[in-house]
Amino acid sequence: MNESNSVLTAPTAAVLIIGNEILSGRTQDINLNYIAKKLTTNGVRLAEARIVPDITNEIVSAVNALRQRYTYIFTTGGIGPTHDDITADSIGAAFGLPVIEHPAARALLEKYYTKENLTPARLRMTRVPETAALIDNPLSAAPGFQIENVYVMAGVPAIMQAMLDSVVAKLRHGPAIHSLSVSGYVAESVVAAELAEIAARYPQLDIGSYPWVKNARYGTALVTRGTDAAAIRAATAEIHALVIKHDPHPEMG
Amino acid sequence: MNESNSVLTAPTAAVLIIGNEILSGRTQDINLNYIAKKLTTNGVRLAEARIVPDITNEIVSAVNALRQRYTYIFTTGGIGPTHDDITADSIGAAFGLPVIEHPAARALLEKYYTKENLTPARLRMTRVPETAALIDNPLSAAPGFQIENVYVMAGVPAIMQAMLDSVVAKLRHGPAIHSLSVSGYVAESVVAAELAEIAARYPQLDIGSYPWVKNARYGTALVTRGTDAAAIRAATAEIHALVIKHDPHPEMG
Repeated sequence: MNESNSVLTAPTAAVLIIGNEILSGRTQDINLNYIAKKLTTNGVRLAEARIVPDITNEIVSAVNALRQRYTYIFTTGGIGPTHDDITADSIGAAFGLPVIEHPAARALLEKYYTKENLTPARLRMTRVPETAALIDNPLSAAPGFQIENVYVMAGVPAIMQAMLDSVVAKLRHGPAIHSLSVSGYVAESVVAAELAEIAARYPQLDIGSYPWVKNARYGTALVTRGTDAAAIRAATAEIHALVIKHDPHPEMG
Repeated sequence: MNESNSVLTAPTAAVLIIGNEILSGRTQDINLNYIAKKLTTNGVRLAEARIVPDITNEIVSAVNALRQRYTYIFTTGGIGPTHDDITADSIGAAFGLPVIEHPAARALLEKYYTKENLTPARLRMTRVPETAALIDNPLSAAPGFQIENVYVMAGVPAIMQAMLDSVVAKLRHGPAIHSLSVSGYVAESVVAAELAEIAARYPQLDIGSYPWVKNARYGTALVTRGTDAAAIRAATAEIHALVIKHDPHPEMG
């Protein structure tokens, strides 16, 4: 991509995935991809992601590094009822704030659970750093929370998705980021030189080249991305003209 | 998890995923999970992962932050023939080394391509920082490379996997990391208090709690992980005794 990019004027975001299970390989993360798509659709540029273990200092360092740098930070994981759920305390530590039982969070859980089922473990899920606002959890009541530009969400994908959907509407949206792709049976090295020339003529766009293999034949997807829809169409027409020299029927997308 | 963990004595690693396509949501990364499993099996503790865009400064900063801190760094992506493949130059910049055409890499590509097909774009894939050693690519010839503790691999999963498999044998292996799980129809908040007591009695182990939903019923996988196999068996027996109070037939794994 081109380092001076019009997309840079959009609000930026980072994702912080918290969880040993991702780093041990037990769990394949699918939250990042969902968040990435959702932010892109809404004109927020996801600029970085980090994955850290369930260790307080690691979470604190990552949150503090990222929140200084990007418009929004989205965390996933570690807000459940068990001993390994240390995200609320870590975010509190990152902001230098005490962690308190949030009265509205308690009210939500009191509505969701019967009185005898509102155990101390479940009440752990009402704890947020002082001054945090709650993020709605329509699936299982226990809320996420927001403090300044940091949005703290569950790790369970269905719950994370519901939380993010409710949060996205409130974000500052940049110009929508569009993309068009041309994908055909041609090795990327065959089109690389001409592609570089096209990319140089459209410095306001990202033009990415992604090789693939299908039926033992090499192909490449050439993806043009940015906020300038007319330029994207023009660059894509040039890329199409380049690819059809090698594959008369490329896929457009 | 417990912050003072015997697993900490193992060699450590970080993964750096380089690619706009992951951050835009176009591509679901599957490389991290493969690397995580492979390292865990070989007693290398994956301690952090970062995902950065195709921007030189971002790659340089991340490489330099991570390589100081962990035993090994594995990067994926950005070593192909196109204009957006800037990993070799970025790693060179991170180490303050010029990027040169590696004679052995050229010889590999000369063997793989006919002379007229060895285009300038393909020759880009022979460029590595001075003093780097090559990493074999049995699938499509263009090699990865290693410099000090940084291993630079392709982003295409099949190629990355082949490269990693050849590299892993040469790493310093820590004690093997084992894990056992008990998974049953019980909400994690129901077992949280007793689970915390078990976790406190086994400070040398990580005990993780991962909720799931199946057929509209809540369940939890309780995973015990560490290098002390006898302690893992003992803790898992306690966890099993806890879970069968709620689900007589938990799955063991």
